[in-house]
Amino acid sequence: MEEYTRYSEQIESKLNSLALPGNPARLYDPIRYSLRLKGKRLRPVLTLAACDLFGGQAEDAIDAAAGIEIFHNFTLLHDDIMDQAPLRRGKETVYKKWNTNVAILSGDTMFALAYRLISAKRSDNLKDILDTFTQAAIEVCEGQQIDMDFETATNVTIPDYIEMIRLKTAVLLGASLKIGALSANADKRQADLLYDFGIYAGLAFQLQDDLLDAFASNEKFGKSIGGDILANKKTFLYLKCLEVTSQTDHTKLSELFSGSISYDPEVKILRVLEIYNRYNIKQLAIEEMERYFNKAISCLQMVKADEHKKAQLRNYAEWLYKRDY
Amino acid sequence: MEEYTRYSEQIESKLNSLALPGNPARLYDPIRYSLRLKGKRLRPVLTLAACDLFGGQAEDAIDAAAGIEIFHNFTLLHDDIMDQAPLRRGKETVYKKWNTNVAILSGDTMFALAYRLISAKRSDNLKDILDTFTQAAIEVCEGQQIDMDFETATNVTIPDYIEMIRLKTAVLLGASLKIGALSANADKRQADLLYDFGIYAGLAFQLQDDLLDAFASNEKFGKSIGGDILANKKTFLYLKCLEVTSQTDHTKLSELFSGSISYDPEVKILRVLEIYNRYNIKQLAIEEMERYFNKAISCLQMVKADEHKKAQLRNYAEWLYKRDY
Repeated sequence: MEEYTRYSEQIESKLNSLALPGNPARLYDPIRYSLRLKGKRLRPVLTLAACDLFGGQAEDAIDAAAGIEIFHNFTLLHDDIMDQAPLRRGKETVYKKWNTNVAILSGDTMFALAYRLISAKRSDNLKDILDTFTQAAIEVCEGQQIDMDFETATNVTIPDYIEMIRLKTAVLLGASLKIGALSANADKRQADLLYDFGIYAGLAFQLQDDLLDAFASNEKFGKSIGGDILANKKTFLYLKCLEVTSQTDHTKLSELFSGSISYDPEVKILRVLEIYNRYNIKQLAIEEMERYFNKAISCLQMVKADEHKKAQLRNYAEWLYKRDY
Repeated sequence: MEEYTRYSEQIESKLNSLALPGNPARLYDPIRYSLRLKGKRLRPVLTLAACDLFGGQAEDAIDAAAGIEIFHNFTLLHDDIMDQAPLRRGKETVYKKWNTNVAILSGDTMFALAYRLISAKRSDNLKDILDTFTQAAIEVCEGQQIDMDFETATNVTIPDYIEMIRLKTAVLLGASLKIGALSANADKRQADLLYDFGIYAGLAFQLQDDLLDAFASNEKFGKSIGGDILANKKTFLYLKCLEVTSQTDHTKLSELFSGSISYDPEVKILRVLEIYNRYNIKQLAIEEMERYFNKAISCLQMVKADEHKKAQLRNYAEWLYKRDY
């Protein structure tokens, strides 16, 4: 994991060295603020790891990696407006701290800054790198729209849900890896295998997020559980439960998620969890998640690269994946 | 002008052939709607004209040209949210017809689609084309932020204003021309001269917009005059007038634009125009505009290219510029 800690430090240092202009302050201050809310820097770490896997140097991929992180933060900025989210990583969101207009325009600028970094290096692979990034960017937008459409849809199926999280979450992980591989001049087949690894790992991570939201122990999760339940989110847990329940519980669960009756938050969470537990939904979700994670590992195994480095990437993915719940 | 009519038809046909997906409908319907609100297609026409000027074929630049038009329409979509504008080219704006979230996310998708088109062709100049586009995109955002900052600023100078319209309006015209030139493999010096032509022409066009807003005859202008005055916009006319007025009129004009007193719209417009007329502001603005337009023409004259084609480009610019007021 030492390597991966170093990758994340390299990303921080790159982001800190961007020297964004001071003015207009209401455009660039929110961007600085947003980039200082440190996360795991998961996506750019994957880019650097993928580049290393094919013998590239960090400098071959560091610009693109930083660009991907800025893009990701841009999507959070705009998502927070759309979701009216007051907090992000424990701090006020940009739209809340400034206003909607500021969050729209700073976000737009971040999107352009992302492209500046992604196309910073003159490379034979530049067009493939851009095509990969742009495709992912468009699909992330599609995923966000489908997620919003689900709020009012009544006929969402599990395949619909998996497709939504593939678009909203997984494709950017896949693209981060593929762009790292392309930055090291990996051949297309190898880069695509790594992309698929990212897709399946991304689906597993998202299912795990769903699980943690419902079943994590509070102190380990770091935020209160049941957020998805209170927001009537049609997660895998909910959709799977509808699939396997009795008619009576089906009606109860649908009603709990319909938003038409107002419940005390704690009561609502308890009632939903009680139904989930009766049908062993946690176990069913874990099985589904493991299925995706194993698919991810199979893709990684097929990649032709240094076995030690592949093992490191696998360890990193497992470390991300095996959080407690 | 025949050539230029053909360019604009080529743009329409390219935009119509994009085959955007049907779903998610709330993402792609607003994009289709926005692209069907036909304008002059000024920017992509300039891209095709610049490409032709250096011996390129329409197919060398048509993708990038369409990308620039989509980018421009994306900025309008987001600007309309920020300005709470109900109408655009006589039709409901996207944020009004759907909602803010839809306008944010469709806009974001258009930005990505713009990049897809701009990087569609494998070209030795791809990196320079992208750098030119991204720089313009970032500057357009800066210009929009500065324009919003001006709403509450009390110390805006004429150079501040010129810099704002350079960023908000002129750089994209410059970039449209430069990208056309680069698509035809023009050398960098020639492409830069064309960029400068676009900058100065853009400044002249914007000053002309300011003039038309205050002095156009209604039937020719196609919309009612005085919009900038009612919105307390600190245009060149206003700033120039403050520079040359007596102390008494300075106070009157500042007060009229302060937003602190509510006037009957017609009365407000008449009072402002009366002050403008007393100081011959129309003539002063025309002189400033002509100064920029002549600078534009000087840049074009220095371009090494077919003289007949240069004359066509000049004619097109003059046709845009010499609208009645």
